[in-house]
Amino acid sequence: MPFKRKDLLGLRDLTVEEIEHILETAFSLKEINTRSIKKVPTLRGKTVVHLFYEPSTRTRTSFDIAAKRLSADTYSITGSSSSMVKGETFLDTLKNLEAMSPDIFIIRHSSSGAPHRLADRTPISVVNAGDGMHEHPSQGLLDMMTILEKKRRIDGLTVLIVGDIAHSRVARSNILGLQKLGARVVACAPPTLLPVDLDLMGAEICPRIDDAIPHADVIMVLRLQKERMQQMLLPSLREYSIRYGINGRRLERARKDVIVMHPGPINRGVELSPEVADGPHSAILDQVSNGVAVRMAILYLLGQREMSRASATREETA
Amino acid sequence: MPFKRKDLLGLRDLTVEEIEHILETAFSLKEINTRSIKKVPTLRGKTVVHLFYEPSTRTRTSFDIAAKRLSADTYSITGSSSSMVKGETFLDTLKNLEAMSPDIFIIRHSSSGAPHRLADRTPISVVNAGDGMHEHPSQGLLDMMTILEKKRRIDGLTVLIVGDIAHSRVARSNILGLQKLGARVVACAPPTLLPVDLDLMGAEICPRIDDAIPHADVIMVLRLQKERMQQMLLPSLREYSIRYGINGRRLERARKDVIVMHPGPINRGVELSPEVADGPHSAILDQVSNGVAVRMAILYLLGQREMSRASATREETA
Amino acid sequence: MPFKRKDLLGLRDLTVEEIEHILETAFSLKEINTRSIKKVPTLRGKTVVHLFYEPSTRTRTSFDIAAKRLSADTYSITGSSSSMVKGETFLDTLKNLEAMSPDIFIIRHSSSGAPHRLADRTPISVVNAGDGMHEHPSQGLLDMMTILEKKRRIDGLTVLIVGDIAHSRVARSNILGLQKLGARVVACAPPTLLPVDLDLMGAEICPRIDDAIPHADVIMVLRLQKERMQQMLLPSLREYSIRYGINGRRLERARKDVIVMHPGPINRGVELSPEVADGPHSAILDQVSNGVAVRMAILYLLGQREMSRASATREETA
Repeated sequence: MPFKRKDLLGLRDLTVEEIEHILETAFSLKEINTRSIKKVPTLRGKTVVHLFYEPSTRTRTSFDIAAKRLSADTYSITGSSSSMVKGETFLDTLKNLEAMSPDIFIIRHSSSGAPHRLADRTPISVVNAGDGMHEHPSQGLLDMMTILEKKRRIDGLTVLIVGDIAHSRVARSNILGLQKLGARVVACAPPTLLPVDLDLMGAEICPRIDDAIPHADVIMVLRLQKERMQQMLLPSLREYSIRYGINGRRLERARKDVIVMHPGPINRGVELSPEVADGPHSAILDQVSNGVAVRMAILYLLGQREMSRASATREETA
Repeated sequence: MPFKRKDLLGLRDLTVEEIEHILETAFSLKEINTRSIKKVPTLRGKTVVHLFYEPSTRTRTSFDIAAKRLSADTYSITGSSSSMVKGETFLDTLKNLEAMSPDIFIIRHSSSGAPHRLADRTPISVVNAGDGMHEHPSQGLLDMMTILEKKRRIDGLTVLIVGDIAHSRVARSNILGLQKLGARVVACAPPTLLPVDLDLMGAEICPRIDDAIPHADVIMVLRLQKERMQQMLLPSLREYSIRYGINGRRLERARKDVIVMHPGPINRGVELSPEVADGPHSAILDQVSNGVAVRMAILYLLGQREMSRASATREETA
Repeated sequence: MPFKRKDLLGLRDLTVEEIEHILETAFSLKEINTRSIKKVPTLRGKTVVHLFYEPSTRTRTSFDIAAKRLSADTYSITGSSSSMVKGETFLDTLKNLEAMSPDIFIIRHSSSGAPHRLADRTPISVVNAGDGMHEHPSQGLLDMMTILEKKRRIDGLTVLIVGDIAHSRVARSNILGLQKLGARVVACAPPTLLPVDLDLMGAEICPRIDDAIPHADVIMVLRLQKERMQQMLLPSLREYSIRYGINGRRLERARKDVIVMHPGPINRGVELSPEVADGPHSAILDQVSNGVAVRMAILYLLGQREMSRASATREETA
């Protein structure tokens, strides 16, 4: 089945079939990462450009490994180091890069919707690697892949998301994607860290974490940004940890086969205790491994499309 | 025809035949960038080192894409990040890199003549990617390629260069190269931004831009560096824009087939109005595309030379 | 002969046979760097991650060239740029990278023993690229390779090490390695820059450099870190240069076939005069060339091991 989209911008846009297609592709590509020679020629001669206007090592390295294992050539433009950015509009920078014949842009930007605005203005495939507080679709997909791997299904599961949901693009992509695949999503956070449109998104709210834990198949813990204290959205890290931190004692009341997830990096002892992060329920490092596989799938599917487009163009001009 | 030079340092040194040879090679390599698999094995196993002592994303990315599409391996040493630079002379840094068996150095340096001094002291090929206010030969060549592509000739054309010619290595390389190929070059700029040796270089001066525009086949607009205000070389951006900025109204008096060029990044609304930058006469994004092709040609020709040199050396020692 | 170790952490751990095995491999791989196509497919599909928590261009570039000439894909995580590091432990960063299926970590860290602590906690091969004031084994090996190349033997030679031995991981690795291979090591430095355990390591001390020079087959000059002055460990650069600097006049009393080495970057006129650094006895640029060869050997041997491990694992799971 060909993947018809030019871009991967968010889980809001994708159909259930498209999400399942990406995840199936990821499961089949994952095996490459266990080989002695972890490289296939699928995207040889393709040009992938990382355009990171926000600092990132984790996501960028994961996308970069994914691209190179498919034999693409990668280039990295960062917002801070870029002389392109100086005295030049975002769109001028992109039109310039576009003129160098790239195949895929991977964009992280602090402004929500920036990748969408770009995607409308370029024939090049755009992957959203995180835009403001909006979406982080590759993270949502790798989380769904991890749940599928551990639980064999998503439909009918209860996923508890704990933490700073209001400011989290990870949470937003997961809420959108998990519900499409039939999960029930329950949110637990201080009221100051809950988004106003949570009910519009279809998620339930559970004020007390200890009431929610016993019903969860998956506990997805979010990273607590320390600047939320300075913004007066939280009294203190200690207070947060006592009321919302996931620790061994709390987990005793959970289902025996519960899995605990975290997008990283972890604040050990704040949102997650070390015994849980490193314990038998933790799927955190599986998330990281699946991140490479999901990003390989995204680049593979967009690259295949680009390949049929390119051959179509050649036929037209021939 | 083999290319005999070890280095590409400036358009002043090159013969008409050499310039034409590079441009022909660039035209034939350009097609690679339109393929689905944008990669040829020409420079496989070659080591290309970017040595950028001035910040650059645009030129460095263009050279990097060019090198990788020819299958070279690239390495980037920047002046700021380099611990090599600390307590070490420029020449020591280069001798050290030379001992690691590179094939081509691509050098940008704030000091005019730095790539030439290096080229004299190393057997490795040196490409000047911009030295002080001196030359930027790959930019001059990509500009000539773009004119050729749009006008089918350079001989007999009138090229109007507008802006900060005194401080522009782009202008200097273009003035030298375009005249070699038979163009007439007319310079238009505030007297404070005209170089003292302009007549020595053979260019004419036209004080009023509206007098020059009707006779131009090509209008080459230079980027206005904002620090020229602080240096008291210009009264204000607004004043500059009124007297020298290229806008739609001014362009009405130009030839119907005039092309407008700019090396980027553009200060929109200062030296160039958006309607012109994005309008039908603009060749700005063609310049960027041709930049990759010209740099592929430069690396290809120097790499071929290196290859014959290497096989000659092996025969000597065999 | 297969190389059995998972890691290369220091010369203290290695047997004479292992050191000789690495050096023989380096001598046989060195020829690749003189070819026109400087690339072999040995490590194709392998993932090499540079983890540099201290700035380095020289060593990192050397390892990077070595890896790419063996066709590995390389990734660079630096301590300063890494968002991984923020709010994340060193071990969490590494466990995350480990989940992305790398083959070799190349680690530089300001804390002595950091690569060893990591190596104990990961199945991935770890190469120590310099840890605190502890070891820098690839530098020690490239120095031994250079001595072997110039002198045809190490056994029975007298190697004079001059300079800041107390703070030098280069000196420590050399002292350990050279003695294993039968050399006599003599140290000459201001008392404040001599390590307290020098006699435990088996090295002799010679207080006056002019007494030591006539007996040396090799003079290994260390870089003087200028911050030693601020730490009151030295009166002045000029005083140091007069008492310990190697210059032409001093070298007149040396053996006719003495070689002078320096790990770089050189403070010209401080620890080494330009006439010696660039003179006929200098082996400094040979060290740099051999650095690439030694690092190719290290990556090759660890990569081979990884390959047999991977195929063994596949058989187990098959």
